[in-house]
Amino acid sequence: MTKQFQIVGIGNAMVDILARCEDSFLAEAGIDKGIMQLIDMDRAVDLYSRIGPAQEVSGGSAANTIAVIAALGGQTAYVGKVKDDQLGHIFAHDMRAQGAVYETALAPKDATDETGRCIVLVSPDGERSMNTYLGVTEFLTPGDIDEAQMAQAEWIYLEGYRFDGPDSHEAFAKAIAATKAAGGKVSLTLSDPFCVSRHRDAFRAMIVDGTDLLFCNRAELLSMYETEDFDAALKTAGSEVEILACTDSDNGAYIVAGGEVTHVPADAVDIVDATGAGDAFAGAFLWGITHGADLTTAARMANLTAGSVISHIGPRPQADLTALFKDAGLI
Amino acid sequence: MTKQFQIVGIGNAMVDILARCEDSFLAEAGIDKGIMQLIDMDRAVDLYSRIGPAQEVSGGSAANTIAVIAALGGQTAYVGKVKDDQLGHIFAHDMRAQGAVYETALAPKDATDETGRCIVLVSPDGERSMNTYLGVTEFLTPGDIDEAQMAQAEWIYLEGYRFDGPDSHEAFAKAIAATKAAGGKVSLTLSDPFCVSRHRDAFRAMIVDGTDLLFCNRAELLSMYETEDFDAALKTAGSEVEILACTDSDNGAYIVAGGEVTHVPADAVDIVDATGAGDAFAGAFLWGITHGADLTTAARMANLTAGSVISHIGPRPQADLTALFKDAGLI
Repeated sequence: MTKQFQIVGIGNAMVDILARCEDSFLAEAGIDKGIMQLIDMDRAVDLYSRIGPAQEVSGGSAANTIAVIAALGGQTAYVGKVKDDQLGHIFAHDMRAQGAVYETALAPKDATDETGRCIVLVSPDGERSMNTYLGVTEFLTPGDIDEAQMAQAEWIYLEGYRFDGPDSHEAFAKAIAATKAAGGKVSLTLSDPFCVSRHRDAFRAMIVDGTDLLFCNRAELLSMYETEDFDAALKTAGSEVEILACTDSDNGAYIVAGGEVTHVPADAVDIVDATGAGDAFAGAFLWGITHGADLTTAARMANLTAGSVISHIGPRPQADLTALFKDAGLI
Repeated sequence: MTKQFQIVGIGNAMVDILARCEDSFLAEAGIDKGIMQLIDMDRAVDLYSRIGPAQEVSGGSAANTIAVIAALGGQTAYVGKVKDDQLGHIFAHDMRAQGAVYETALAPKDATDETGRCIVLVSPDGERSMNTYLGVTEFLTPGDIDEAQMAQAEWIYLEGYRFDGPDSHEAFAKAIAATKAAGGKVSLTLSDPFCVSRHRDAFRAMIVDGTDLLFCNRAELLSMYETEDFDAALKTAGSEVEILACTDSDNGAYIVAGGEVTHVPADAVDIVDATGAGDAFAGAFLWGITHGADLTTAARMANLTAGSVISHIGPRPQADLTALFKDAGLI
């Protein structure tokens, strides 16, 4: 039986506020470079008042991943909560306009919090430092998970960041159970090394018991297994899941499956804005493996897509990815 | 006496919603290519539901002009109305973060209309077709004009588009009177050929009686003087104002002063998004003439700045304009 969706993603629905800044600003503002930090509304308002002119684009890690899959023509859906406010409407528009199904109930107009946003400060070297006000997206509950939709997914894709909020573990557990019961598979991204620190035990339980495909980058993998030995961590993680896809910045990615480690190098790219690179990698990889590509080919597609996204401002693809894959002889 | 501001701009405060589209979409949606059309909220909602993923950036014609002046380090202020909503806060942030003074009272949260927005559809050739829902910016009244601020302006800059709304003529008249009474000068942009058609008599009266510097492009000039004879129109307009600055797309600009017409050619540029080209031209020209540049040098600065803005998505400068002027030997 063909399912309705190749991939259904679940994560934090956010609008990104993208602004350039000097490294000195990060230091003055007490921002750790290159990672995601959670902030409250007061801090969001204060920080926003101090940054330069910005542009607003829909973001959210898993949402970016789903946008890539939709841009490639995949059948895909997204679950994540925004409010019935202007930023929420922007997020919903961009998800649907890209071709994804998006039906999560809006938080009502009178909710105390607003649609979540991420103030992304882009340094001259293209590195991004993310300051996330979760807002209403924190309150995704099991009630937002439609079991019938999960049953229609070949794969679900779970965003590690979503663990930073109440009820998220339950929502994920419900999604996993409904997916597996219908013969679907589960992928998970570790999202961020500090997110791993905050939720190591819960992540570990989910990896061992239920995750078929694990996405991470080098720092997240080392944090997850509390080691400095990258090769050993690759092998350990690879033994716990069917497929491990670990990115390693401009060195490309490592795919581990059936006990075998494969390095898939990436072409050099001028980095304008690193925002969304990992998300784009995951999207193209998932699209690849659900459209007949072997793991190495899917990783090459994923490297190319990540490279395309970091060559411009904003976390979602602007190039014609299908043409990119054709030019590279991948499809 | 040195005044506080070199330029104070008055116009429609808008957030741009920028999306790419094929020319065929414009035809299907009944949109005239390359111009600005006014739309109501229903049409805005319908059109937004049909366009692809978008990005949001602060716009508004005179606001873009003021942003250029602020980016160059000029002392500048802006007057235009937004609502106390998320898009309004984005607009206000971007204006102040760029360095402009912006103190116009917000329309209250319970106002029926929202912050104005412009759905800008960018064709593959870089041409933009603008669909403007004015929202609360339509209701700028004489009460929003601070005569003390106008008295502190060497120049005011009036946006022709602002005539598309009640009370605007009165607001402009109040601003002109306060500026002139304090020895300041008045510049005006015709904004759009169809805007000229809608308000030709009112524009004509303002040009003859009170405008020192007129900005327009070829199509607007021809519409204003209801002629096909460009040279004749340049001379007529040039006789009615102290300075005429008329842009002519990739052919550069014509400056008319003291009965003399000077053509200032522009360098060729790859157009990515034409949005804001005329606004950027006016900003750099005004910055130039208030910082000691002669008219030709100011026009060269203006051509360069317009070229910079159309080489990327979005209506405001992203490049370091001061460095650009230095590289070109203009400062």
